[in-house]
Amino acid sequence: MRIGSKLSAELEGRSIIGESRGAAGDKTFKAIDPRDGSEIGPVFYSALDAEVERAAELADSARREFAELSNKRRSGFLSAIAENLESVGTALVRRAALETGLPETRFEGELERTCGQIRMFAKVVSEGSWVDARIDRAIADRKPLPKPDIRSMLHPLGPVAVFCATNFPLAFSVAGGDTASAFAAGCPVIVIANKAHPGTAEIAAKAIAKAVSDMGLEEGVFSLIFSDGYAAGQSLVSNPLVKAVGFTGSRKGGRALIDIAAARPEPVPVFAEMSSINPIFLLPGAIAERGPSIAEGLHASFTLGHGQFCTKPGVVVLPEYVAAGPFILRLLELTKGSDPVPLLTRKIFEDYMEKIESREKVELERGEGFRVPVAVSTIRAREFFKHPSFADEIFGPSMLLVLVDNDDEMFDIAEGLEGQLTATIHGTDDELSQNRTLLSILATKAGRLIFNSFPTGVEVCAAMVHGGPFPATSDPGSTSVGKRALRRFARLVAYQDFPDSALPDQLKDSNPLEIKRFEE
Amino acid sequence: MRIGSKLSAELEGRSIIGESRGAAGDKTFKAIDPRDGSEIGPVFYSALDAEVERAAELADSARREFAELSNKRRSGFLSAIAENLESVGTALVRRAALETGLPETRFEGELERTCGQIRMFAKVVSEGSWVDARIDRAIADRKPLPKPDIRSMLHPLGPVAVFCATNFPLAFSVAGGDTASAFAAGCPVIVIANKAHPGTAEIAAKAIAKAVSDMGLEEGVFSLIFSDGYAAGQSLVSNPLVKAVGFTGSRKGGRALIDIAAARPEPVPVFAEMSSINPIFLLPGAIAERGPSIAEGLHASFTLGHGQFCTKPGVVVLPEYVAAGPFILRLLELTKGSDPVPLLTRKIFEDYMEKIESREKVELERGEGFRVPVAVSTIRAREFFKHPSFADEIFGPSMLLVLVDNDDEMFDIAEGLEGQLTATIHGTDDELSQNRTLLSILATKAGRLIFNSFPTGVEVCAAMVHGGPFPATSDPGSTSVGKRALRRFARLVAYQDFPDSALPDQLKDSNPLEIKRFEE
Repeated sequence: MRIGSKLSAELEGRSIIGESRGAAGDKTFKAIDPRDGSEIGPVFYSALDAEVERAAELADSARREFAELSNKRRSGFLSAIAENLESVGTALVRRAALETGLPETRFEGELERTCGQIRMFAKVVSEGSWVDARIDRAIADRKPLPKPDIRSMLHPLGPVAVFCATNFPLAFSVAGGDTASAFAAGCPVIVIANKAHPGTAEIAAKAIAKAVSDMGLEEGVFSLIFSDGYAAGQSLVSNPLVKAVGFTGSRKGGRALIDIAAARPEPVPVFAEMSSINPIFLLPGAIAERGPSIAEGLHASFTLGHGQFCTKPGVVVLPEYVAAGPFILRLLELTKGSDPVPLLTRKIFEDYMEKIESREKVELERGEGFRVPVAVSTIRAREFFKHPSFADEIFGPSMLLVLVDNDDEMFDIAEGLEGQLTATIHGTDDELSQNRTLLSILATKAGRLIFNSFPTGVEVCAAMVHGGPFPATSDPGSTSVGKRALRRFARLVAYQDFPDSALPDQLKDSNPLEIKRFEE
Repeated sequence: MRIGSKLSAELEGRSIIGESRGAAGDKTFKAIDPRDGSEIGPVFYSALDAEVERAAELADSARREFAELSNKRRSGFLSAIAENLESVGTALVRRAALETGLPETRFEGELERTCGQIRMFAKVVSEGSWVDARIDRAIADRKPLPKPDIRSMLHPLGPVAVFCATNFPLAFSVAGGDTASAFAAGCPVIVIANKAHPGTAEIAAKAIAKAVSDMGLEEGVFSLIFSDGYAAGQSLVSNPLVKAVGFTGSRKGGRALIDIAAARPEPVPVFAEMSSINPIFLLPGAIAERGPSIAEGLHASFTLGHGQFCTKPGVVVLPEYVAAGPFILRLLELTKGSDPVPLLTRKIFEDYMEKIESREKVELERGEGFRVPVAVSTIRAREFFKHPSFADEIFGPSMLLVLVDNDDEMFDIAEGLEGQLTATIHGTDDELSQNRTLLSILATKAGRLIFNSFPTGVEVCAAMVHGGPFPATSDPGSTSVGKRALRRFARLVAYQDFPDSALPDQLKDSNPLEIKRFEE
C-alpha cells in the first residue's frame, strides 16, 4: 500500500511532500480557537526549505504525464477527490468549526459547495471543450503563398502554488477552487496551508493524496506545505519550477507575492484575490419602496460569516434627501441586537479593532477570545472624501453608510473607487435606466454588478465572475469562481502542419473527443 | 474641419495628442538610413511630459464612450483605418523602406498584412461573439437557496499603451496588431512611436486620427507620442490612467516595462513579445530525404527581413551521426553567396557584431552603414552547454548549428530552452511518432510547434498563436496575432439579477446581436 492510500482524520501535523511526510523540525505551531484564544492540538511542523524545494521538483517531474492524462482520467481524479472529501466530511466540518469559531452548519454548506465545484470542473474536463480548440485548415493553392494548417488549443501552464484563504477553510483552501481548477487544467498543485486552520488542511490534503495514490498518478501531482511564517510560501513562489500562483487573502499578502513573482528571472502570473469593499448604492425609489427589507438583507450580508467574506458590503451610499428613516432605523435595530462575534485570527481581530476605533474615535469593549462587536456608522460624503482610508477593506462585521447630497457626489464616490469584486445598485427598474451613468462607471470598477440583491453568496456557475480590477484581484481578465476559472492555469499552443496522428486528440480531424471547436 | 481630417503624407514631426499637435520642444531626433547611416528629414520633436499626461487624460475621458460604441460603429472605425492606410500606401511603403533599409516590396506585403489584420478584427467585432457571453438563468424555486440570474461577458480594459516594434514598422507598430486588437476590444490607444521609423509612424497615425475625426469619436481614442529616449514610454506605463501595455521589442526593453508596470500602485498587464531563438530540430530521416531543400528553406527563413523577425530560427539542432553532408554543404553554399545586409538601427548592428565576434572569436569586416555579414556557425552540443549565452537571441542574419551525438543530448537541449515563440521539428511522419518525448518537451516550451516547415511567416488567422512562455512573451496565456489577440485587452464583468432593459445587448434575452452565447 502506498502512503496516502489510507484515509483517516487523525492528524500528524506534517507536510505532505508527494508520498512522503515532512520532518518533525524545530519550527512548530498550533491552531487556535478564536472563541477563547486557546491552542488546539496537535503540533504542526513547519516544512524545511529542502521540503519546499522537493515538492516543486516532484511537481515538475509529474508535470508532463499529468498534462497528458486523458480527460476521462483527469475527470475521474477530480470526482475521486470530491468523494474522499465527503467520506471525511464529519471530521472536516468539525475541525473547521473548531479552528474558525464559525458554526458547523456553515461548513456543511461549504463542504457541499467545495465538492460541487470540484464536480463542476470534473464535468468541464470530461466534456472537454474548455481547451478552446481552433482549426484553420491548409489552403495549398492560396496566392501569393499557400496557407499552412494551423490548429491550437490550451495546454496546462505547469506546477501551480496555491495559498489557502483564511476565511474559507474548504472552498478556497486545500481542495478549493484554485486547486480544483489547476488540476482540471492539468497542472500539479502545491498548497501552502493556512496557519489558522492547519488541521482542516491536513484532512483535505489526505483526501487529495489518496486520490493521487489510488489512481496511480505520479506523487508530485500534489503536495501540502505547513509553515509557521511566510518563508515557505515566498520560497515556493520564487521557485523557477512553479509556473503560476493562486492566492486568496489580504492585500498586503497578495501584493508581497505578486512582487516576488514579478521579480523572478522568469516572472509568472499570480492570480490573487485580495481586497474589496463591495459598495452598495441605494437609489431613492428603492429605499422608499422597501427600506426595512433592504436593511434586513444588508445586515444579513455584512454579518455573514462574521463579516469575513471577500464580498462583504463595506460601504453603502445613499441619498440624504430621501426618507431613509425606516431603512436606517431597521438597520440600527438589527445591529443593536447583534452579539459580538469571534474573528478568525488574532491579526484580523486586532486590525478590526484598530480600524473601527480609529474611524469611530471610540474605544471598543473587548470580548472573549477574538470577539468583536458589529459596527455600523454613518458619515457624510464630504467627510468620506477627506479620509481615503475609509474606502479600505475592513475584515469583520462593520459597515459604513455614506450620505450623499446629490447625484454628483454619488458619481464622485463611484469614480473614486478602487477595483472591486462587486458593486450593487438597489433601485426601481426606472431608476436603473435613468442612472446609466452610475452603471457605466461601476462597470469599469467591478467584476460583478448586482441589482436589488446582495453581494455575499457567490453562485458557482458557468457565467460567474469572481474577479475585478486591482486590488480586488491582480488579473481583471480572469475569475476564480465558475467554469472559466481553469483558463487561468492554461496557455495557448498552436500546431502547424502536423500529421493528424501526431496531433492531440482535441485537434485531430475526426474530433474523437467530440468537443466543440471553432473552425474557419 | 477638425484637425486630423486632412490626410497627407507631409511630415510635421510632432506628436499627435488627440486633436492637437505636440509642441516644438528642445529634444529632437531624426530617422536614419541604415544603408549609409545618414540622417533623414524632417526633425521629430520629443513629446513633453505634459503631453504624455494629456494623452492619458484624453484617453481616460474617451474610455467609457468608446467602450459603449456599437459593434457596427467600432467595426466601421477599424475598416476606415484600413482604407485610410491604403490611401496613403505609397507614401507609407516608401518611407518605411527608407527608414529601415528593407526593400519596398517587403512593405507592400506588410501593408497588405496590416490592413488584412485590421479588417479581420473589424469582422470579429461586427460578428460580436468574441465577448464570450454566458448566461445562467435564475431558478427561483431552487433549494436551499434560489439561483440568481447571472450573465457575463468581456468589457474593455481601458486605455492601452502600445510600443512600436523596430522590425515591423507597419504590422506591429502604430496601426499594427496591438493597436487594432485594443481598438477592437474597445480600448483607446496611445502609441509610442519607434525612433527608427518616426516618419512611417506619423503617416500611419494620421490615417488613424482621420478615422477618429471622420467618425466623430472622442479625440482621446488615439494619440501618438514621439520620444528621443525611453522617458516618455516609461512615464506612460507608470500613468495610473493606462490599464494595459502592448510591446514588441527587445528582452531588455520589455523587461524594463514589465517591471515598471508591476511596481505601480495598481499593477497592470504588459503583453510583451521579446525574445526567441525559435529552435529547429532536424531528425535523421528528414536530413537524409531532403537535406538540400531543408537548407534552402532554412536559409530563406533566417535571412528573411535581414534576420530581424521575432520568429527567426537562431539555433538548429541536428544529429552528427547521419549523413548531414548535403544539408550542410548546401547551407554553406547559400550563405557564402549572401551579401552583407543593413540592420535596422545602430544598436542592433552593434549588438550583432559584438555577439557574433564574441561567439566566433573573429573580427568581422564592417560594411557601409549598418551592414552585417550573414553568419552561420557549427558547434558540438557539449560546447553549446558550456556557453548559456549561445542560447540568447541574436537579431540579424545569423544561425548556429548544434551537433548532437544522441537523443539524450537533443532532449537536454530541448529541456534547457527558455520559453520560445516557436519550435520546429523536421522529420518523417514515423520519426515524429517515435519522438513523442521531444514533442512533449517542446510543447512546454513554445507557443507554436511546426512540422517540416519554417517559423517565419506568421499566418494571421483564427487559430494562430504568436506567444509563448517567458521570455518569448510575458503572458503565455495570450497571443498577439490572430483572432484571440483582442482578448488581452478585455476583462470579465458579470450582471446579477438585472432587468433585461438594463443589460448590454450581448446579454439580453432576445439576443438582438445574434451572437454565439454559452447558455447552461
